[in-house]
Amino acid sequence: MPEFQRVTISGDYCAGITVEDYEQAAKSLAKALMIREKYARLAYHRFPRTTARYLENVSGQAWVGGFAITPSCFADFHPPPLPQEDPYCLHDAPPNLGYLVRMQGGILFVYDDQKMLERQEPHSLPYPDLETYTVDMSHILALITDGPTKTYCHRRLNFLESKFSLHEMLNEMSEFKELKSNPHRDFYNVRKVDTHIHAAACMNQKHLLRFIKHTYQTEPDRTVAVKQGRKITLRQVFDSLHMDPYDLTVDSLDVHAGRQTFHRFDKFNSKYNPVGASELRDLYLKTENYLGGEYFARMVKEVARELEESKYQYSEPRLSIYGRSPEEWPNLARWFIQHKVYSPNMRWIIQVPRIYDIFRAKKLLPNFGKMLENIFLPLFQATINPQDHRELHLFLKYVTGFDSVDDESKHSDHMFSDKSPSPDIWTSEQNPPYSYYLYYMYANIMVLNNLRRERGLSTFLFRPHCGEAGSITHLVSAFLTADNISHGLLLKKSPVLQYLYYLAQIPIAMSPLSNNSLFLEYSKNPLREFLHKGLHVSLSTDDPMQFHYTKEALMEEYAIAAQVWKLSTCDLCEIARNSVLQSGLSHQEKQKFLGQNYYKEGPEGNDIRKTNVAQIRMAFRYETLCNELSFLSDAMKSEEITALIK
Amino acid sequence: MPEFQRVTISGDYCAGITVEDYEQAAKSLAKALMIREKYARLAYHRFPRTTARYLENVSGQAWVGGFAITPSCFADFHPPPLPQEDPYCLHDAPPNLGYLVRMQGGILFVYDDQKMLERQEPHSLPYPDLETYTVDMSHILALITDGPTKTYCHRRLNFLESKFSLHEMLNEMSEFKELKSNPHRDFYNVRKVDTHIHAAACMNQKHLLRFIKHTYQTEPDRTVAVKQGRKITLRQVFDSLHMDPYDLTVDSLDVHAGRQTFHRFDKFNSKYNPVGASELRDLYLKTENYLGGEYFARMVKEVARELEESKYQYSEPRLSIYGRSPEEWPNLARWFIQHKVYSPNMRWIIQVPRIYDIFRAKKLLPNFGKMLENIFLPLFQATINPQDHRELHLFLKYVTGFDSVDDESKHSDHMFSDKSPSPDIWTSEQNPPYSYYLYYMYANIMVLNNLRRERGLSTFLFRPHCGEAGSITHLVSAFLTADNISHGLLLKKSPVLQYLYYLAQIPIAMSPLSNNSLFLEYSKNPLREFLHKGLHVSLSTDDPMQFHYTKEALMEEYAIAAQVWKLSTCDLCEIARNSVLQSGLSHQEKQKFLGQNYYKEGPEGNDIRKTNVAQIRMAFRYETLCNELSFLSDAMKSEEITALIK
Repeated sequence: MPEFQRVTISGDYCAGITVEDYEQAAKSLAKALMIREKYARLAYHRFPRTTARYLENVSGQAWVGGFAITPSCFADFHPPPLPQEDPYCLHDAPPNLGYLVRMQGGILFVYDDQKMLERQEPHSLPYPDLETYTVDMSHILALITDGPTKTYCHRRLNFLESKFSLHEMLNEMSEFKELKSNPHRDFYNVRKVDTHIHAAACMNQKHLLRFIKHTYQTEPDRTVAVKQGRKITLRQVFDSLHMDPYDLTVDSLDVHAGRQTFHRFDKFNSKYNPVGASELRDLYLKTENYLGGEYFARMVKEVARELEESKYQYSEPRLSIYGRSPEEWPNLARWFIQHKVYSPNMRWIIQVPRIYDIFRAKKLLPNFGKMLENIFLPLFQATINPQDHRELHLFLKYVTGFDSVDDESKHSDHMFSDKSPSPDIWTSEQNPPYSYYLYYMYANIMVLNNLRRERGLSTFLFRPHCGEAGSITHLVSAFLTADNISHGLLLKKSPVLQYLYYLAQIPIAMSPLSNNSLFLEYSKNPLREFLHKGLHVSLSTDDPMQFHYTKEALMEEYAIAAQVWKLSTCDLCEIARNSVLQSGLSHQEKQKFLGQNYYKEGPEGNDIRKTNVAQIRMAFRYETLCNELSFLSDAMKSEEITALIK
Repeated sequence: MPEFQRVTISGDYCAGITVEDYEQAAKSLAKALMIREKYARLAYHRFPRTTARYLENVSGQAWVGGFAITPSCFADFHPPPLPQEDPYCLHDAPPNLGYLVRMQGGILFVYDDQKMLERQEPHSLPYPDLETYTVDMSHILALITDGPTKTYCHRRLNFLESKFSLHEMLNEMSEFKELKSNPHRDFYNVRKVDTHIHAAACMNQKHLLRFIKHTYQTEPDRTVAVKQGRKITLRQVFDSLHMDPYDLTVDSLDVHAGRQTFHRFDKFNSKYNPVGASELRDLYLKTENYLGGEYFARMVKEVARELEESKYQYSEPRLSIYGRSPEEWPNLARWFIQHKVYSPNMRWIIQVPRIYDIFRAKKLLPNFGKMLENIFLPLFQATINPQDHRELHLFLKYVTGFDSVDDESKHSDHMFSDKSPSPDIWTSEQNPPYSYYLYYMYANIMVLNNLRRERGLSTFLFRPHCGEAGSITHLVSAFLTADNISHGLLLKKSPVLQYLYYLAQIPIAMSPLSNNSLFLEYSKNPLREFLHKGLHVSLSTDDPMQFHYTKEALMEEYAIAAQVWKLSTCDLCEIARNSVLQSGLSHQEKQKFLGQNYYKEGPEGNDIRKTNVAQIRMAFRYETLCNELSFLSDAMKSEEITALIK
């Protein structure tokens, strides 16, 4: 244990609320954590060991429940291929298991064979149960408006913030001294992962502009599209837009978010169209088009080369699967392999836009269930029978999770409950609410992960956008269903959820520059406050094309945070370490980047020679979390004692 | 004239103060501007034509004075050598004029020959007169505390800010439309000059670290210093510091400013010592050492190569002349030529640290006059007799100005007046005050410029650090003596000075990231407000080594300003245009970078194809300035009329 000036408070027991309220709050919070632990365990999501240990103590005494097995502390991803291995090798596909898959009530069920299917006896895997889920949801929903719990959480969070301020005043110089005497490692050569970035905006505006000009200079006469049966060359595309690419500028490209996009997600979305022309978006930023997404692949690869050269930066770009057709998956896998998009510095996330209503209105889908089937059935098939889905099987090695994306501030009239129409009968043109999307995404990922785990294949993390705008109940859905989230701004508005996200150490990929253009001014961003309190935050760029100015978008993000909030090197390296932990990098890579024992919590999990995070900081975080958790378990004990005395 | 939505206010005559106060304020302000014009004209500094034109009107009616000649609107710098020319060619030195130079009362006087010297009849050049100067100073000093003038300026500045807000609301989209239809030019390919940067900190911390490691890897056994008569190799330097460069990190290098430097300029200064070791500063960041400043030159050249590759970025690094010895100049010139430090993307400024007291205490100087002589006499000699000072003569082609640097917050007990001891009898160990330094720097530069102009040689601009901290009277000194200033933060505290700096369009190189680490939090920086009001501001980095994180320090500076203050592309390009105007780039370069007529004011001086600044913005600025100036001349007229009626 490192030596430093510790802040200890004696007598801080009930934190200014009555004993009854405190016990009630603690019990409810512990229960909420247990609920999250259950959903995490079922889906092979992560849950902190420290919190689990305290909960086990609690449950052993006051709770009866299925808390026997050790919670998973690290998810299972394929390590990257070795340098001598071919990342596109299609030969190691395992054999066909012959299982059958059917969707029921929006969830895919696996059957061993036709007979079992007829008998309606699914293959032995955990399947989600909507009724339990709604009960669990309602517990958390009740909790976030419960007065005593709100007071308790509010006070604890204030305490956490003040405690960090004190810690900083007392130990700032000692932390920096540790870093100064740490050989060879500094902020520049610690690993950082851009934990939230959309592939279609992963290049900055200048890069996109240069690329467009370059294609026009080198291949103006290439056929790049077919319109009404007629082949069109690149020159013709620009002619029809009355535009000479030589004159094109970042201004006329107009993909950068400005003051006009603030609180206008709709305007922001249209920024994905260069020069406001959807033709150019299709041509340059899509995986499916006449060129088979070649231009997009080339740009993504240029971004990847820059990451590889920088050596210490990694990125988790999102590619879209819309669920319009089951062909999207094989097409995407083909795009990936054909254009050799693999990079050791990138790991892929699949984003599913919440736009069922648009597809339904265009009559592309009969019901919401079909959308889910289009998204998930190909994955089940590729998992059961990789030999017949070699490309998708291969691509899935580099996919580590799912994201759910769209404007969260869009309101929905529907209130999700166990009485809601199930996806197969959700035929209305109305879009299902956020919570509905999240539950059914989670449910299918959970079954899929269990199936894949059974086969020894990698599993996926659910990492939705959540809490960027809209209702705070989104954060309740994600508390159950997500491994980690992007944004989380609205935790600012709910002390109970914020404290729960702290106790469960749920990673949050924050993008203050994106928020600054869309939803929240930079100076009001809660990142600094969250970091101080000990929430598990990382920094990410979201959309370099729309938000950033320099060639190094992630460094720009770190630099601005460091400057505006006067973050110390230790703060920056803590955020970088969080980003690696949060990411879908494999166990082997994390060991290499963070240290052999990275999965252990507290200072023993930190290798300062790799992370440049002071052991003092690690010890402070760990002791502080244990201290908070001990309040919960103490409350249970005292309740027990009270019960004995009575 | 471009069409846009103009804000016109009718009846806004006296701006809420009495007619008498308004007339009094206007008269005093006009007089202050005339004073500045006089000092600018004498020193070949710049003064805006528009303001001069209004003053001529005024002076023709109510003022008698030497306002006949047109004020210089652009200073005279050597154009850079053509590609086929050798930038180090020593052959074009003009012949010796045989003049003699003697210092009298801290100012160098030029004599045609020995006879004239004996007769005390100096060569016909304007020489400064301390008595007039102190009278002029006292006019401005009285003005900045005059109640009615303060009210008037305060109200005009508020009006300017509100007017810009209105303009922005009304014309933002039209401005952007202009930029979008402007072919080929955008924020990335408009020219930007880093108008304030110290050469010894022009590389970022990572660059310095890499360079140190590289030298150690490639030449550990090279002799790099002599200590107590013994030659020392690079390896021995690091051995004596108990340090292996392989282990060195940006943390152990410890040159970056952190929270510890806020309001601690002393701590900041020590950040120039890598690893806290002055040996390394001497070896890597100085022009005079055993290696003849080779390492420093190599690093500066690496920075220059990056600028040249970026193509659109220029820089005006400061090199130090201390005034300890007259040998500093020839040594610096030799360093420049020997290591071939010339770059088309750099123009040099000489900074003079205000540290006479330190040299005096070490008995290196007998009096302050000697320091001035060491700084300026070599320049007079090289100007009179370039053939015998070929290296210095050549180097001066690339030097475009002087800076005065040090901690402005250091208080001085001495009050500068015409009763102050003149520099030759300033023998005390006390440091002269800021105003004293500025006057004597200006006085000598002024004589020197006149001498050089007579010979057809380039002149120098005085560009001191001013208004970073300390007393606001510094800004009064600079109002008379400086062509432009660095920082200017304290204009925030004096409405009169701020308004005068606006009317005289005095360029201000602002460095909000530097201020954020030293004197003022980013969010409180007045840059945005100054820009809105129409002050002539540019963005500069000051010390990338101490403040910046990314490889592109100037772009980082622009990016952060753009993000935090939500600056539009037009704002950014206006700042970039200002930076080129403010800089010491030659007339030819400015024509190339800004347009043929760049020296004209208002929209006709703007070539949007080169600057990407909307004509609407230019017209707004010009019309607004004319409007403000017309209030001054109207006040005079009404006074005349009043006088006639009486």
